[in-house]
Amino acid sequence: MENSSELRQDIVSGEWVTIATARAKRPQDFLFAPKKRFDQSKESCPFENPNEAILLDVQKESAHATKQTGEWFVRVVKNKFPAFAEGECSVLYKDGIYTKMEGAGHHEVVVTRDHNRSIADFTDEEAKLLMLAYKGRYLGLHTAPCVSYVFIFHNHGAESGATIAHPHSQIMALPVVSPDVQRSLVGSENYYRVNNRCVHCDVINFEIKSRVRVVHENEHALVVCPYASKTAFEMRIFPKRHASEFHTMDDDEYAGIGISLQIALQKLKRGLDDPSYNFFIHTAPTFDHTAYPHYHWHIEILPKTAIWAGFEIGTGIEISTIAPESAAAFLRDIE
Amino acid sequence: MENSSELRQDIVSGEWVTIATARAKRPQDFLFAPKKRFDQSKESCPFENPNEAILLDVQKESAHATKQTGEWFVRVVKNKFPAFAEGECSVLYKDGIYTKMEGAGHHEVVVTRDHNRSIADFTDEEAKLLMLAYKGRYLGLHTAPCVSYVFIFHNHGAESGATIAHPHSQIMALPVVSPDVQRSLVGSENYYRVNNRCVHCDVINFEIKSRVRVVHENEHALVVCPYASKTAFEMRIFPKRHASEFHTMDDDEYAGIGISLQIALQKLKRGLDDPSYNFFIHTAPTFDHTAYPHYHWHIEILPKTAIWAGFEIGTGIEISTIAPESAAAFLRDIE
Repeated sequence: MENSSELRQDIVSGEWVTIATARAKRPQDFLFAPKKRFDQSKESCPFENPNEAILLDVQKESAHATKQTGEWFVRVVKNKFPAFAEGECSVLYKDGIYTKMEGAGHHEVVVTRDHNRSIADFTDEEAKLLMLAYKGRYLGLHTAPCVSYVFIFHNHGAESGATIAHPHSQIMALPVVSPDVQRSLVGSENYYRVNNRCVHCDVINFEIKSRVRVVHENEHALVVCPYASKTAFEMRIFPKRHASEFHTMDDDEYAGIGISLQIALQKLKRGLDDPSYNFFIHTAPTFDHTAYPHYHWHIEILPKTAIWAGFEIGTGIEISTIAPESAAAFLRDIE
Repeated sequence: MENSSELRQDIVSGEWVTIATARAKRPQDFLFAPKKRFDQSKESCPFENPNEAILLDVQKESAHATKQTGEWFVRVVKNKFPAFAEGECSVLYKDGIYTKMEGAGHHEVVVTRDHNRSIADFTDEEAKLLMLAYKGRYLGLHTAPCVSYVFIFHNHGAESGATIAHPHSQIMALPVVSPDVQRSLVGSENYYRVNNRCVHCDVINFEIKSRVRVVHENEHALVVCPYASKTAFEMRIFPKRHASEFHTMDDDEYAGIGISLQIALQKLKRGLDDPSYNFFIHTAPTFDHTAYPHYHWHIEILPKTAIWAGFEIGTGIEISTIAPESAAAFLRDIE
């Protein structure tokens, strides 16, 4: 069975991924040559100076100016083309044999100051300000009427689905808990019932001991390539202290997590010629006042290294062409 | 709430999709201008005349020659770079706190005769031969040792993940039931327990009566844009007769389903300037000798009309920018 593939089970969801070592590539083979590059000038950028837009609470805090410049660094505005728009709370109704609801919610955009500096280029202070902006809006939205889940994500590069070059994250407040989060909650709860421990804490402890998949570590955060990576060079950032909800960290922890995010993205940029990627935050939902002792919030970073084809779309089993251990070793060495 | 979005629940899985009518496009807006086109000549094509490859049983049957030419039309060969390779049966083993298995299985390629004619261009007879080739290999693989699921799929166009231009389908025999199929089985079983009816039969009957999402219908097959479409212009082909397993149709039924597949793909090609797409067959697993009265096999066709971005990747909620009813009306009118 040499040169064949391996199926690895996700310890939380129980689902399988394929590590196709028979089709293995060396890390440098992931430097996709014909990459789409944005051609959007600073002059015509809608995010260049979002003064006139309706600014949301967070930017009024003076904390969101950097000490160095004394000027704003992060601003949050409403999305002009919301996928989920403010309105009356969604109610379920029947449509023949089917069920639907209106897409009530919120859709905001987190804009950072510089057109040409992505998170990979941030200073420690800037990375912390970004995390605090996320937290501010999370706090603002998670108790809003009708909101079942607050989802924070970031698209970088044309292949990631981003359509505006200026670095920006998005926050969506949804009227349902998303299926991916739901499955993750169920999986971690099952593990907790059997083992009486948080599955993510077990992963953190195991990875710190074994080290083969660790990319970066600081006092508050751990960055690893997950054992059952879904894509090549996937990374996951865990806060070291057990916390099920994103908004419950202290400022030092946000600083440590912000730095680890900046370092992880800098390694991608330097090691793989600035690939496109998506990252997002998975947290326990807080709207329902349920305790989720089994859940541990985290950030998932998914570089866009392959097209999903019929196999992945139809099975849900992703095929990664580099072992997470090799990806971690490569990223670890990037200064 | 005008111009906002709508969440629709998948009647089988219970999961939600978003129909973002606020971002709606007219069907003609989906004619993606800068499409990647394959530049692979017939002369250098590895699938042009796969004589020397190890042909599998199915092509030896004389039925796989067309009456018109008397020559072969479909051939099935082993994939030279298998994602799942033949070998000893996979066994689970522990890897620290994790679980893995070797990726034992089979990976075959179904090649049709003509370099430049895709399924959209097939005659009725050719479409039937393709379905019979699928059936032949399904029968050959579903009882093979170690096989838990046989997955048949087809990638068309560069954006679908296809890397070879010559039309070909792939068949993978897997050592696990894929998560997507597993969820689909659980969902349809839950519906069956409550209603004592096959959920897909209910969908077929409802759609035939309402007609707004019907794209094509013949004696044996129904083509619809699903109520909870995950992507723009998604289509699903159901055999009208209830059957949980793909290999249990009679020849007339394969003919009717083959024709409906050819017509559906022809409508995509003519109406949307030959977009990339993936299609695949979802069937109940047969290896375990369990009966699946609640399941109804079908074909899912997913045109590649958008990039999955952070939201879709992190939530599992896809955003479609055209209502399935509008997509069906558009496709229905394409001759």
